[in-house]
Amino acid sequence: MFEKVVEIGYMFDFYGKLLSKKQRSAIELYYIHDLSLSEIGEQLKISRQGVYDTLKRAEKKLYNFEEKLRLVDKFKQKNAKVKSILNHLEVINKEIEKCNRLDLQKSVKEIEKIISDILESSQEVK
Amino acid sequence: MFEKVVEIGYMFDFYGKLLSKKQRSAIELYYIHDLSLSEIGEQLKISRQGVYDTLKRAEKKLYNFEEKLRLVDKFKQKNAKVKSILNHLEVINKEIEKCNRLDLQKSVKEIEKIISDILESSQEVK
Repeated sequence: MFEKVVEIGYMFDFYGKLLSKKQRSAIELYYIHDLSLSEIGEQLKISRQGVYDTLKRAEKKLYNFEEKLRLVDKFKQKNAKVKSILNHLEVINKEIEKCNRLDLQKSVKEIEKIISDILESSQEVK
Repeated sequence: MFEKVVEIGYMFDFYGKLLSKKQRSAIELYYIHDLSLSEIGEQLKISRQGVYDTLKRAEKKLYNFEEKLRLVDKFKQKNAKVKSILNHLEVINKEIEKCNRLDLQKSVKEIEKIISDILESSQEVK
């Protein structure tokens, strides 16, 4: 169950805007705020069964978008690659310190900063 | 017109899979293979007006996906950032050559390779 919650969370980040308002609310209240189906029903003024159906339809849409666009999958792959870049930079940085080149260290820092920017902008899809 | 063709091309790369088969064919034949509406009509066995309507609906969907997910916009921003990383790496590489450190040059090459991978995987959405 925990894995599914994380997966839905990722997909919601990437495709949430493609859901209807009611579907977005249901997913948010259930998966992020951890409310029960009945509690969500009260908030959205629909039946418990209505909440269940809305959630199932919303989840199906999210899985369908991911199957077609694979943005979550690519995001994870990219993260792994970025980590590998950061490891290389660490090695370079250590050695540059020995060369005593402050300007190059600044360049390495710049790269690290840009890489963080890239990672953050990938997640700003909400 | 040229700008629109490029824009549609980008959006088609990112969201083409979310269009219907007929919409995808119409966009491909019109914007990529440069066929006329009548020629497309013959291929898809629909009227010239039908092709026009299909194209308009497909374009509207593409613009709508971009408005919500902004994948093309982010891709362009990311490209600019990556270019900036490559510039920094070039500077680092030149200076490392002076230090005569082949191992560090190898690290820089590795980073360049990973960055190219990241760029390519962003485009593999077709």
